[in-house]
Amino acid sequence: MNKDALLHKSKSEMAYAYDANTLHIWLRTAHDDFQSVKLVYGDPFRYEPIDEAQLHWVWKKESANDLEMIKRFSDHEYDYYFLAIKPEHKRIKYAFVLDDHYLYGVRETYDLSTDTNQKKKYNLFNYFNFPFLNEVDVISIPSWVKDTIWYEIFPERFRRSQNATNQPTHAWGDPAEKVTNHMFFGGNIEGIIESLDYLVDLGITGIYFTPIFKSPSAHKYDTTDYFQIDPDFGTNDDFKRLVNESHKRGIRVVLDAVFNHCGYDHPFFQDVVKHGKASKYYNSFFVKDEPMLNFELNAKGKPIYHRGLIPNYHTFAFTPYMPKWNTEDPLARQHLLEVAKYWIESYDIDGWRLDVSNEVSHDFWRAFRQTVKQAKKDAFIFGENWDYSFPWLGGDQIDTVMNYELIYLIWQFFGHDVNIPRIPASELVRLTNKLLVSYPQQITENMFNLVDSHDTGRILHRSKENKDLAFLSYLFMFAFPGTPTIYYGGEIGLTGDHDPDNRRCMIWDESKQDLNFKSRIKQLIDWRKKYTAFGSSDFRWVTYDDLNQTIVFEKTGQEKLIFILNSDEQAHIVVLPKPLQGINIETHLNVIGDTFEVPGYSYLIIQCR
Amino acid sequence: MNKDALLHKSKSEMAYAYDANTLHIWLRTAHDDFQSVKLVYGDPFRYEPIDEAQLHWVWKKESANDLEMIKRFSDHEYDYYFLAIKPEHKRIKYAFVLDDHYLYGVRETYDLSTDTNQKKKYNLFNYFNFPFLNEVDVISIPSWVKDTIWYEIFPERFRRSQNATNQPTHAWGDPAEKVTNHMFFGGNIEGIIESLDYLVDLGITGIYFTPIFKSPSAHKYDTTDYFQIDPDFGTNDDFKRLVNESHKRGIRVVLDAVFNHCGYDHPFFQDVVKHGKASKYYNSFFVKDEPMLNFELNAKGKPIYHRGLIPNYHTFAFTPYMPKWNTEDPLARQHLLEVAKYWIESYDIDGWRLDVSNEVSHDFWRAFRQTVKQAKKDAFIFGENWDYSFPWLGGDQIDTVMNYELIYLIWQFFGHDVNIPRIPASELVRLTNKLLVSYPQQITENMFNLVDSHDTGRILHRSKENKDLAFLSYLFMFAFPGTPTIYYGGEIGLTGDHDPDNRRCMIWDESKQDLNFKSRIKQLIDWRKKYTAFGSSDFRWVTYDDLNQTIVFEKTGQEKLIFILNSDEQAHIVVLPKPLQGINIETHLNVIGDTFEVPGYSYLIIQCR
Repeated sequence: MNKDALLHKSKSEMAYAYDANTLHIWLRTAHDDFQSVKLVYGDPFRYEPIDEAQLHWVWKKESANDLEMIKRFSDHEYDYYFLAIKPEHKRIKYAFVLDDHYLYGVRETYDLSTDTNQKKKYNLFNYFNFPFLNEVDVISIPSWVKDTIWYEIFPERFRRSQNATNQPTHAWGDPAEKVTNHMFFGGNIEGIIESLDYLVDLGITGIYFTPIFKSPSAHKYDTTDYFQIDPDFGTNDDFKRLVNESHKRGIRVVLDAVFNHCGYDHPFFQDVVKHGKASKYYNSFFVKDEPMLNFELNAKGKPIYHRGLIPNYHTFAFTPYMPKWNTEDPLARQHLLEVAKYWIESYDIDGWRLDVSNEVSHDFWRAFRQTVKQAKKDAFIFGENWDYSFPWLGGDQIDTVMNYELIYLIWQFFGHDVNIPRIPASELVRLTNKLLVSYPQQITENMFNLVDSHDTGRILHRSKENKDLAFLSYLFMFAFPGTPTIYYGGEIGLTGDHDPDNRRCMIWDESKQDLNFKSRIKQLIDWRKKYTAFGSSDFRWVTYDDLNQTIVFEKTGQEKLIFILNSDEQAHIVVLPKPLQGINIETHLNVIGDTFEVPGYSYLIIQCR
Repeated sequence: MNKDALLHKSKSEMAYAYDANTLHIWLRTAHDDFQSVKLVYGDPFRYEPIDEAQLHWVWKKESANDLEMIKRFSDHEYDYYFLAIKPEHKRIKYAFVLDDHYLYGVRETYDLSTDTNQKKKYNLFNYFNFPFLNEVDVISIPSWVKDTIWYEIFPERFRRSQNATNQPTHAWGDPAEKVTNHMFFGGNIEGIIESLDYLVDLGITGIYFTPIFKSPSAHKYDTTDYFQIDPDFGTNDDFKRLVNESHKRGIRVVLDAVFNHCGYDHPFFQDVVKHGKASKYYNSFFVKDEPMLNFELNAKGKPIYHRGLIPNYHTFAFTPYMPKWNTEDPLARQHLLEVAKYWIESYDIDGWRLDVSNEVSHDFWRAFRQTVKQAKKDAFIFGENWDYSFPWLGGDQIDTVMNYELIYLIWQFFGHDVNIPRIPASELVRLTNKLLVSYPQQITENMFNLVDSHDTGRILHRSKENKDLAFLSYLFMFAFPGTPTIYYGGEIGLTGDHDPDNRRCMIWDESKQDLNFKSRIKQLIDWRKKYTAFGSSDFRWVTYDDLNQTIVFEKTGQEKLIFILNSDEQAHIVVLPKPLQGINIETHLNVIGDTFEVPGYSYLIIQCR
């Protein structure tokens, strides 16, 4: 037995309430260490007398036989065992029995084959405890999120309406490449409204907009006024129309809450610039030293950034343009919470994406959540956390996050970026397993999955401009538990290196769009909607091949689908552990057997019979 | 390298903010696996150009040399490495370098000796992240708690004042043993006031009272009226005087918040008994089925309990006398939050001990904390959690808990209870180490440590009535990080098996008190106050001996103390890893050398020079 590999923690992502009646229990063991893992459990308070006189009482476990756990994930390092149970009285104490031989408890692991230890089997002091399943503490995410097909729009670059009166610095799509954050192409809200039918046709049911409030930059992450749509984008009324038109088409609308920091021009910050400590907003920011402005200003009164600058106030990264909010300051807090409420109550948006959510206090997100959910019960809140995020996702703060933990695995396995070392299939299996047990299932199911965004290189670029390879990343994301997202233009073959090159103008000239790729993406969306297995969180690895870089996994919904992906340039033979019988969902041809040739950068999806 | 033994998690008890500027970082490794463990870290956003043209940028780590971590705890299973750092910009990314050979990061562990992997050393995607140290999120506990010497009083059994007019069923101390929860001896608040000088003399600075509100039982965990002192105990004004007199003597007062459930007689519950679903309090409880009262009532209208009864409403354990509150119901919630506020605002109590805190919703404790801390900023809140409790202790709910995780180790090592198998010294070391890394330091420092309580057998009983052995448990608790507690009467030799035998009447007749034991306990309290090392959380194991069951640990404050304990009945020789020079704090004799004979059930405490 490998004791060190054993891992369980009560009241964690390894033991949590899935719904008001169901607990999920996970145990990690070394790979292939045990033939059987069982759960012994019962109510903490059920004792029964074992003699007539009722002098001796023993604990009464729930069932005569310990419950066999299911080996849910397995890789070359660990096996992960799972069980869902519904405790009669909403509380249990439990331990794990390994090969009917060892008991793994909260304090000790012991060999049950000795008499002394056998007696200790039901020593509740060594048991894990789930004290009570209180419904209010169950992590609960709005039900509409799970089946949403997301589309991310960077408004300055998505579409300029024909009647636009804004004054861009550049004509749409010129230059087509090497765009910067100082170029303005005139994208606007009216343009987005004009594109809604395009999105409906594609199959989109939710849009996440990067910031649209008044700000001097193209990306608008440096907000000047949180209550006003940037005039270059249009008016607040235009936005109201956008939400209404989206809703009419069954599309939800989520805005970007840039609450970690504001822009240099925000009136609160400018008040501090002018009045220093005398400003009532002095504590709305984190001034570390005087002079607060330890840098030069240009002719327009804006900071001049130079390499190595560390502003005398906390900022996002080290940029003087983005002073960090002190969200504990009552004035700052009230301001931001009003913003959170305003766009829901007055414009009926469906949720907020939280910029740099990991740098804002947990305390603020708790207040934010209460404000948002009071304003709209089924509003969705997801954060920009790039790392392990469960400390934010306990149900009291953020619903889910942008799944940058997944994106990196996709890049590592399917991508060809020199800065991102490739991993063998076995590592993909290990790391996806690790990711899937990192969060309660309801979080995994509602993760905002993505292959790229306005903050990363585009997937086509990371796929050395090869559409077949890029498509594999989309396919994997669409089939992975969570919700899929398309970053605008990805569907028609838009490419680009990391920021700002990933923010090129959307191509609307159909002759310049890759309509074939678009039809493939559309097909993917259709499959996601047609087969519940696609969107199910019941994901299991079937096999993989490190030499050929092929992977096989299955998804189970109302039907079962087998996904066979070849991430290598060459065609390869894939052999399944056991033969199957089914239908290729793309060709509709019958499929029988255990051996399949898959062309390079290609796949098979088989619906089992 | 034992990969499976490596354990770290960001934003957890292994990586947390200790104060507004300091992060604590822990790494677990297999025992003796590495000669050196280093932390490589830096600001997530510091990149510097590596060529003139500034075309290539690399991450700039914080210091040229990686920081050596300290092997803080070590046992036969694991070593635990520690480092406290103050990140300049309150945020870091970090990874661990093992023997200058391996890098352990959030996704992968790799051998740095290969060229490919050396390049990956600064791949931030594999780094752990502490995104920002927001001061409001720092777990912070009132500063007075850390040095409190606690005394737990069970009021019905502590002292009956001379002028008492209540009508006990039994004369004080008669019977002296085999007491039950249905006997009333007439303990009252006036009696406690009369005893305050006794407690001052003993050195007590904080009292935790088990419930004192109106209730039919002796233990009063079945509250009838949360706003009224039980008439048998006295009046609310009596209690006000008790708090004032305590405060005058430098003693803090903490009451028992029994908010998981109320008593059968509580008017809200009785309203439901009478009116069923028509009662406005119907949702203040969890009625599972009708008839709600699926049991007989006695002549006085009280439930008749029988073995196997499972009431049709959620209760504490399965007792019909304690219906569980639905703290999400607005009426119940408001009621309980008013109680929390009332006793602070009107009676100036210093905190609340939360009964069965692990079965009440996290959501309620968050609201409770806000209410309490608003009413009194430095009020202390500690819970009755018997198990791993970090999910309650993130700073948003409960300050600390009754340290039942520690108590069990004390029983296992020092105790002689047939139901609690003894553990060897090495297991005590392993399990205390595990416990010490289970919580952020500020929680450990403020844990409510204990050797017994109204819910356990008394330590003297668990020590087969041997005072020397019992004293070792007290000594260990007093020297262990956290605050020590004496359960009333322990100091004068009160004994008893588990509930209700542990609730015997306090002995006030000095001729029947063990005054020698009392003076030893008093000495312990004096030491705890005199030597900062006693109360320090800087605890380290020096050595141990499984055969002789001797242990040696050191504590460091302004001075350094070495504790040598012999838990065996026989005298044993203890050999230290290196010689020391100091003074025995008890005998004040000089001590030199590395070899000491310690009598059975005895100890040496040496202040190092």
